[in-house]
Amino acid sequence: MRIKELKLHPIAVADGPLRSSYGLHAPYALRTIVEVVTTDGITGISETYGGDGPVGALESVRHRVEGMDPFQLTGFWQYLQGQAREIEAQATSTGARSQTWLVPGENPLDVHTRTNAAIEVACLDAIGKALGRPLCDLVGGKCRDAVPFSAYLFYKHAGGGGMGDDAREDEYGEILTPEAVVRSAKQMVAQYGFKEIKLKGGVLDPDAEMDAIRALRAEFGPSFPLRIDPNCAWSVDTSVRVGLGLTEELSNGGYLEDPCAGMEGMGEVRRRLLAAGVDTPLASNVATTCFAHVPVAKQTDGVQIILSDPHYWGGVRAQQKLSDLCEVLGLGMSMHSNNHLGVSLMTMAHAAAVCPMLTYGCDTHYPWQTEIDEVVVGGRVKFHEGTVVIPDKPGLGVELDYDQVARGEERYRKLPYRKRDDELEMQKHVDPNWKRILPRW
Amino acid sequence: MRIKELKLHPIAVADGPLRSSYGLHAPYALRTIVEVVTTDGITGISETYGGDGPVGALESVRHRVEGMDPFQLTGFWQYLQGQAREIEAQATSTGARSQTWLVPGENPLDVHTRTNAAIEVACLDAIGKALGRPLCDLVGGKCRDAVPFSAYLFYKHAGGGGMGDDAREDEYGEILTPEAVVRSAKQMVAQYGFKEIKLKGGVLDPDAEMDAIRALRAEFGPSFPLRIDPNCAWSVDTSVRVGLGLTEELSNGGYLEDPCAGMEGMGEVRRRLLAAGVDTPLASNVATTCFAHVPVAKQTDGVQIILSDPHYWGGVRAQQKLSDLCEVLGLGMSMHSNNHLGVSLMTMAHAAAVCPMLTYGCDTHYPWQTEIDEVVVGGRVKFHEGTVVIPDKPGLGVELDYDQVARGEERYRKLPYRKRDDELEMQKHVDPNWKRILPRW
Repeated sequence: MRIKELKLHPIAVADGPLRSSYGLHAPYALRTIVEVVTTDGITGISETYGGDGPVGALESVRHRVEGMDPFQLTGFWQYLQGQAREIEAQATSTGARSQTWLVPGENPLDVHTRTNAAIEVACLDAIGKALGRPLCDLVGGKCRDAVPFSAYLFYKHAGGGGMGDDAREDEYGEILTPEAVVRSAKQMVAQYGFKEIKLKGGVLDPDAEMDAIRALRAEFGPSFPLRIDPNCAWSVDTSVRVGLGLTEELSNGGYLEDPCAGMEGMGEVRRRLLAAGVDTPLASNVATTCFAHVPVAKQTDGVQIILSDPHYWGGVRAQQKLSDLCEVLGLGMSMHSNNHLGVSLMTMAHAAAVCPMLTYGCDTHYPWQTEIDEVVVGGRVKFHEGTVVIPDKPGLGVELDYDQVARGEERYRKLPYRKRDDELEMQKHVDPNWKRILPRW
Repeated sequence: MRIKELKLHPIAVADGPLRSSYGLHAPYALRTIVEVVTTDGITGISETYGGDGPVGALESVRHRVEGMDPFQLTGFWQYLQGQAREIEAQATSTGARSQTWLVPGENPLDVHTRTNAAIEVACLDAIGKALGRPLCDLVGGKCRDAVPFSAYLFYKHAGGGGMGDDAREDEYGEILTPEAVVRSAKQMVAQYGFKEIKLKGGVLDPDAEMDAIRALRAEFGPSFPLRIDPNCAWSVDTSVRVGLGLTEELSNGGYLEDPCAGMEGMGEVRRRLLAAGVDTPLASNVATTCFAHVPVAKQTDGVQIILSDPHYWGGVRAQQKLSDLCEVLGLGMSMHSNNHLGVSLMTMAHAAAVCPMLTYGCDTHYPWQTEIDEVVVGGRVKFHEGTVVIPDKPGLGVELDYDQVARGEERYRKLPYRKRDDELEMQKHVDPNWKRILPRW
């Protein structure tokens, strides 16, 4: 079995005007659907980041992927590591290494883990389909039959995603008050059965966001773990103030995610909270973006829960590697998400199913996307009491609806942008002078 | 595909009177050949530790293994971890936890990793045979086509293994002088093509062993990495003295393995060597016997090279996990060996082939065993210039010769012992008052 062809489908997916400390979500999120077609006619699929950057990175490995045996993933990863080392050596010798490399997603050395993930998952899906085995069986088998996800709440403006003729309403409306946050949570919990809740913060004044968390606690009670993620919008002082103010609300499976920027600041927040007798764990996908950061997280105690993501860290086996590392170092693990469709949801579910350390409900943006954009046959993946059940089907357990993929590609072609820029969206739609300021509070 | 039957074949394998700080090898080494027979008639095999202990541990999981889908290895490992936790809880509550648990191989909590390895490898072999794929392909594919092994020299008395009618001569004779060490090295290098050399020390006075290493350097030159492993026979002072005395000889890919007992002592040796400008790395399979020890090794700098072993650490995926952990922590990795036959050799080769971090030639006792005892079809596995080439055959790439297995079982049945006891062998054959003393020098 060899890979005969790599197919890339850049697509655009309608997305509502969600807010975060980065700014405002654009009317369409960008994704890429990847196919590897094998010589024996099997097609493996994956879903990854979208836009020119990720597509270009995948195009650049086409010559290496086409002709490859999909089982030879260690070798493919070594090839990508070699490419990354070359980029690094060049940047070092020419002095082109930039401070912006420290921004998550902007470091060219991260690209190869994402490229690896997109190819690995498609290869594992193809292998699973060839063998008639679920993807999770190819990496050791699942340790749970169903993967719990969390309601992922956002502040947002009124209206849904899309533009022009394709503009859509959404079922959530404007969410800028504690009452609206609670309303959206109740909608999601009713529709999907989630039993854990995370609020994307860093948008309103921290006191208003604390009020929202308190309102969620009042509505759902202590059996629903609560989390808040202001994406580094707060200073160390503010982070400590929020941690102290939400001691009870963030207990019992809750956490405080990336309250401030940098491992040093996170470590200081942790020390000050512990000194006050508060052991709310700090979670991160900003201070910890690669394996080398994980021992540092342990050493400095800046992060207690690593936010994994099979798309970002290198794939399903990399996800297992992170689970193993967290186990050895005594760290917790949860899972981060970006806007995504059903192929990614199933990837996250299989990846989470094989990681014993993943004991927190995973994030998912899935409720913010709609049936109109879904690319998997049969429409949107169903949740059962807040979980995705691992299907007893080959590979990821989903197939592409090619008409839907074509519609997504058509939307992508019409779009004027090829890169996510939440700051620009804020300037266009909300405030022409808006800048991402860290810390803002 | 389900496992219909677990078959265990305890066998005895002739072994010469090899010496170490533990004492004297008995006339037969004990091994266990494991088979898992699937419902579709495929048999997966593995080789593991021998004697009543390992066989009993495998018997105790028969009810869990029979009926199991061989792909569901994460679940099997979780089951074993649950058993281990029960043992630990009982021992803690009854006060039965013993200091002897700190002796490698004597900790009942280690048993489950070895049991897991034996079952995992047999399952992966069965899966590989079912799919027509080499075992290494099932865990991501190899990163090298051939795995380098090292000449593993021992001090020994004259004669070979076996007893009574089955007593054998060996080609090495007595090895108790530097000249004999060099002679045995030349024999092994000529026969197997090894390009790296390790001497099991801790037997003679350290000065005599240093002379042996110097004689090896004089004979083979600096392109042959040299290693010495006295199995903790030395004090910190002696370890430092040897490290300083063999600075040049142990450079260029050499290492000093477990010179003294315990991470603390190892750390002190390291600090004193570094202070003297000597950065000979310390390797260990005694101070580091489980994953929890690995970060401690890094933190204390007591060990720079972890000695892996798929049989001991939990299997092929555990071997990868260790490789990943060493990569993240910036540690080196090599591979330890016990007396073994061809099934184990192929297991070690597949495991090493998928671990990018394994950059030192692996240990192997294989040259100390003979064709007479080999259980794989076609006789002993061939070395090519000191390496084992990963065959393009399903699973491990070897099949059992059942007549040979039956002969091994027959030898086992006749044996009066069911557990390795090198100290007792010394008392019986060399010195009735011999005791393992650490440190001896």
